[in-house]
This record gives sequence, C-alpha cells and structure tokens, in this order.
Amino acid sequence: MAIDYKKELENAARNMIFVHDPDLLIKMIVRMMVNKAKITHASFFLYNREKQGYMLMVSKGSLGKRIPLDLICIDKDDVLIHFFREHKSSFIFGREALLYSEAKSALENLKIKQETKQQLAQVLYQMELLETVVCIPSYFRGELLGILLLGKKENGRKFFDEELDFFVALNSNVAMAIRNAQLFKELEYQLDRKHQLFVRTTVALAAAIEAKDHYTHGHTTRVTNLSIEIAQRIAEKNKNEFDAKFLENLHIASLLHDIGKIGVPEHILNKRGGLTIGERNRIKEHPMIGVNILKPIKELEGSLLGVRYHHERFDGKGYPEGICGKQIPLVASIISVADSFDAMNTNRPYRSALDKHDAIHEIGSLSGKQFSPLVTDAFLELCKEGKF
Amino acid sequence: MAIDYKKELENAARNMIFVHDPDLLIKMIVRMMVNKAKITHASFFLYNREKQGYMLMVSKGSLGKRIPLDLICIDKDDVLIHFFREHKSSFIFGREALLYSEAKSALENLKIKQETKQQLAQVLYQMELLETVVCIPSYFRGELLGILLLGKKENGRKFFDEELDFFVALNSNVAMAIRNAQLFKELEYQLDRKHQLFVRTTVALAAAIEAKDHYTHGHTTRVTNLSIEIAQRIAEKNKNEFDAKFLENLHIASLLHDIGKIGVPEHILNKRGGLTIGERNRIKEHPMIGVNILKPIKELEGSLLGVRYHHERFDGKGYPEGICGKQIPLVASIISVADSFDAMNTNRPYRSALDKHDAIHEIGSLSGKQFSPLVTDAFLELCKEGKF
Repeated sequence: MAIDYKKELENAARNMIFVHDPDLLIKMIVRMMVNKAKITHASFFLYNREKQGYMLMVSKGSLGKRIPLDLICIDKDDVLIHFFREHKSSFIFGREALLYSEAKSALENLKIKQETKQQLAQVLYQMELLETVVCIPSYFRGELLGILLLGKKENGRKFFDEELDFFVALNSNVAMAIRNAQLFKELEYQLDRKHQLFVRTTVALAAAIEAKDHYTHGHTTRVTNLSIEIAQRIAEKNKNEFDAKFLENLHIASLLHDIGKIGVPEHILNKRGGLTIGERNRIKEHPMIGVNILKPIKELEGSLLGVRYHHERFDGKGYPEGICGKQIPLVASIISVADSFDAMNTNRPYRSALDKHDAIHEIGSLSGKQFSPLVTDAFLELCKEGKF
Repeated sequence: MAIDYKKELENAARNMIFVHDPDLLIKMIVRMMVNKAKITHASFFLYNREKQGYMLMVSKGSLGKRIPLDLICIDKDDVLIHFFREHKSSFIFGREALLYSEAKSALENLKIKQETKQQLAQVLYQMELLETVVCIPSYFRGELLGILLLGKKENGRKFFDEELDFFVALNSNVAMAIRNAQLFKELEYQLDRKHQLFVRTTVALAAAIEAKDHYTHGHTTRVTNLSIEIAQRIAEKNKNEFDAKFLENLHIASLLHDIGKIGVPEHILNKRGGLTIGERNRIKEHPMIGVNILKPIKELEGSLLGVRYHHERFDGKGYPEGICGKQIPLVASIISVADSFDAMNTNRPYRSALDKHDAIHEIGSLSGKQFSPLVTDAFLELCKEGKF
C-alpha cells in the first residue's frame, strides 16, 4: 500500500525545523496527522523538566473521542512512560511503535516472561483509559522526548506496518525539530534575560545618579516611557514604522540622557537660590560629560545622539552646539519634549511644579521655538486623548 | 543501482541539524561525500552577505586536483552563480544538479535558444577551470545559499541519475542545516553583543561614579580583573571548577562593588584631612547603599552578596554586619583582597600609595585576620609568579 499523504507530511516535517515555537510545531504535526491519515483523535505529551513529567501539549479529534483536557501531565514514573523510557517496545516487538492489538496477543504468547506480561497488561489498561490504539515515542539521543497517542482510523481498519514505520520515522524528525526549537527558545530566553539585566541595571544606576539631584526622583523612568509613546505616535501619524533599532536607541538614550549629571558638583545641582552664570555653565556641561562617559561603548553609538543633543532647541538657542531644526536628530527632539514636560511637572530648586494643564499648554506654545513641531504635535495628540 | 553509502550520509545529514557551526558542518558533509562516494575532489561555496559573493568554505581531495585555495570568493554576478541563482539548471535539464557532459551535449541541441547556449558555454568554461564535473546548488526558500562542486569519480565512471538525485536531496538537507546553524550563530552573536553592552555600560557608569572619588581612577576595572584571576587560581588549586554562574556573579559584583559610593557626599569622599567618626560612618554605608540600588534587579541576586560583604573581615571586625570566617561568601572574600590590594597601590586622600612589594607583604600578613587564607594563598601564589 502506498501512503498517499506520505510526501506531504515528510515535507511538512522537514520544514518544521524552522518553526521555533515547540508548542506550535507539535500542534501543526498532530493536526496534520489527524487530517491526512484520517485518525479519530491524537494527542502529544512532551517532557517537561520542571514538572518531571510529560505534559499534554495538544489533543485533536472529534469531541468525546479525544483525551479529556483535565488529564494534563503524566508522571515520568507512570507505567506507560516507563515502558517507552526503557525502549521496551523495541525490545519486545522490534519496533518503536506500540500497537494495542499486537500487545494484546503478546499476553497470550508463552515465550514472554511473566514480569513483562504484567507490565504490558498495565500499559494496555492505560491505553484503554486513553482510548489509544497506537503509541509512538519520540526519542532524541535515546531519551524519551515525547509520546504521540493515536486513536482509531476513521474507516475502522487496522494500521498497516508501513504506516506505523512511517509514523515512527516522521516522529523522529519531529523530535529533532522539537529539540531544535527548544534550543532556540532557550537562547531567546537568555537573550531576553540579558536585555532585562542591561535595562534594569541602567535604570538603577541612572536612578542613583538622579537621587543626588533630589528633585527629580523617578524622572528617568517617566521620560523613557513618555519618549517611547511619543515615538510610536509619530510613527502612526506618518503611517510608517520606526525600525526596532531606532526604538532601541531611543529607549537607551532616554535611560541615559542625564547620566552626565554625575560630573556636575552636588552643591550646584541642589542649590536653592539662583545660579551664577558659571554654575549655569557647569550644568550645561552634562550632555557632553554623558557623551564622554558612554563614548567608549561601541554598541551605544546610536543612542549617543540623544544624550548629546537633548538640550538643543528647534530655534538654535539650545546647547551644547546650538544646532537647529532638522539638524537636531529626532531621537534628541523626542527626549527634549519628554524631559521638559516632566521637569515642568516636578518641583525644582528654582521654582514649583506647574499644573499639568499649564505644562501641556506651555509645551504647545513653545512648538517651533524650543521644540520640534513634529514632536509636539504627537505629544499634544496624546494629551488630548488623556494619555498623560 | 543501490547506493551503498546512502543511509549513512542521510543519517549524518539529519544529525547535522545539531551542529551549530556552519563552517564545521560544511567541512563534515564535504569530507564525507568525498570519502563515501569516492570522488576525487569537492568544494563548497557559501553565500556571504557582506562580501556579496560565494566564499570557498572547504576544498577536499588529493593535492593538485582540488580547487586552488587562492580562489576564495566567487562574485554573486559570476556567470556560474548567476546560472543557478536563476534556477536555470532546473529549467533546462529538469533537475537542480548540472552535469558537465549533459550540458556539453545540450550545446548541440537545436531546440535550445542561442542565448541560453552562450550562457551554457560560459558555465562549461567555468566548470573546466574549476575541474568540476557536477555542480549541485543548495537552495533555501528559493535563494541560492551555496553550491557544491564535485570532481570526477575515482573509478573514472559517470555519475548515475540516482546518485545525482540523492546528492540534490542531501544538499537540500544540508542547506536547511546550514540555515539553521546560521540562525543559531546570529542569536549567539546577539547574546554576546548584549552581554558586552551590559558589561561596558556598567563599567562606564562605575567609572563615572569612581571619577567623583578622584583617587581611584581605573580602580573598578583593576579589581574586576584581579578578582577573576584569583578565582581561577582558587579553582586550580582545589582541582575543581567554579560554574559559569559563580564567575559571572563575581564579575558583575566586582564591577558594581563600589556603586553605593554615589550615595556618599562628595566632600567626604574627597576630604584631604582625617575623617570624623560621623564621616567614617557615612563611608561605611556604601555597601548597603549599593545593595539598595541593585536590589530591585532580580538577575543580580547572586552578585549582591559580593557588593554587600566586600568590607567584612575574616576576624569579624569588618562592616556592615561584622560576620566572620566562612560566614563571608567567597565572592565577597575575593573582592575584599582584590579591592584592598588595589587601594594600597593607589594614592588616597589620607595616605600615599604603598610600594607594590610592601602591599603584597601587607596582604600576606593580614591573612586570617582581615582576609580569608584561602583567598590570600591564591593571591600570593599569583604574585610569586609575577602576575601582578
């Protein structure tokens, strides 16, 4: 008998190597087997190290026939699992797949040891409970990675040897794909963890530097969130998307924008009375001090523009360079609005906080003077919607 | 004809999905093909985006027969590459592999367009230069990922159709494995980059905080390097290895050990005269200020012990808690020695730097008093070898 769906399933299994989500991958293959091989129901249990058991990942088939979903995890010492972990099916029947009917008749075979028969009887009982006609283990380097349980064929016929061999081979490809996907997921998890470590440490250190400047507690986090929201609105308004790199640069630049304050003497940052011109100039050094601190870090190149230019003004009257209009990088123009808005909302040594509505009005009135109209338009839209 | 090495190569190709180094993978498959299929020489060119060409990755076979190694990169607009990028072999001959003899006789076929013949003639000339009898392209989702060039069979016979079909199928698996390996490498690269970003940013910020304490420039980097060397020596002496996690925690803890100094007023850190008891107590707060800054960061849990306890003493007379002996975590005991040694070597507001040999002697004489003997022993060994 030629298996008409063989080629199709084989190709699908091959391409699965590029599905890097193990859950999705298992769902795809089980759904395909049920549909193509016309089986009443099928389910897949995948080993889960934390749970020390085999978790039900997917159960497909017509209602009432498939495995009930409240049976979620099979313990790794369960008799069925144990049987396959020890490769018993291969030892007794010469193939990895276990057929209910074959196991049933083996119980009457005099040559099989009594102990093995007892084990088989327990396995058969389990298969009955799970309404399973065929079990197909997935091994990876000898370890039982998962197990596929199949119901009957819809036409009521038996499974052919060729079909079973094919399912076993297919399942071994699926096992590789699953393992591959797990490795990818693990790497992605590590990458995410490392990213979080970077962001959180930077936030913590920025907050510590801020804490010297007693009036600005929480400033960095607020400016960062506000900057990202403004950027996203600008993208929406202009019906394009910033690439991930731009948003990452903006994110890091807003986290680090005031880092240079560490180089400004505390007594100037916290002075209550008016500042002398000399003191004012010391404060104006902070963007360039920040740039000098971060310059050695190649990976921060894209973010440095934000640190350097977040005190430039659209009309060219800002610092450190006095550049204007479109010369000011967008990342810096965004931080400038977010930074100023948050500063207006906070008590400072030299003045009290503005009312929020006054602050919004002030930002609007400075559009095209201190701030880039592109940025203030997005900011004001967000305000109108009650976002801040 | 049955291909006797078929099963072996197929299995090898399947398992290659777990070789995550594309170079190694290509070397393995080419070596196997040359040996098993008994081909005089074989080489593989892999697409390289930066070079905009196909790089020679491996060239196997007896000397003089294989492709000379100075032919390193084939341009992506080269006639041979162009031919396969446009899937011409499949269009003309109905299969992906291109056979020299087949192409040669196609030149005499009247049905083939003149333009195609010209192109084929150029391809044949290239194959002659490369002493190639068969070209097998590797496609991934329609794109030409690489190309395998084969010499003659050792026995002088022609390649069979079945062999060629097998090589094509094999090569398609290899292409998947290569692509998979490339994706892994890319993720690993990103992970490494993110790690560097974290380390460098932390170093930069620690350095900025240090810069307030004018006397300690470069202190953090030196303490970090010294700590890692001491840890490695302790591991060698005790014939075990610290797990990667311990070394990572030590690395991060040494980077961040003095971060709490940001909370100590500048005028105390830089005071030239003697410190009052009150001022001394303010300085003693820095380990706990550091812990409080970093506490919210779950990923830094393992490193916090180093930050918290790096001023504890083996005899219990240290701070902040006055714990002693084995109560002090090893990570903190290591930083303590590295930190003290570097401090002794540096001019401080309250005293001049010690001569290096005096500093080493001082550390030794404080073993079992200020410092853990386990750590000082390793440190002194390193000194004896002239490491510092």
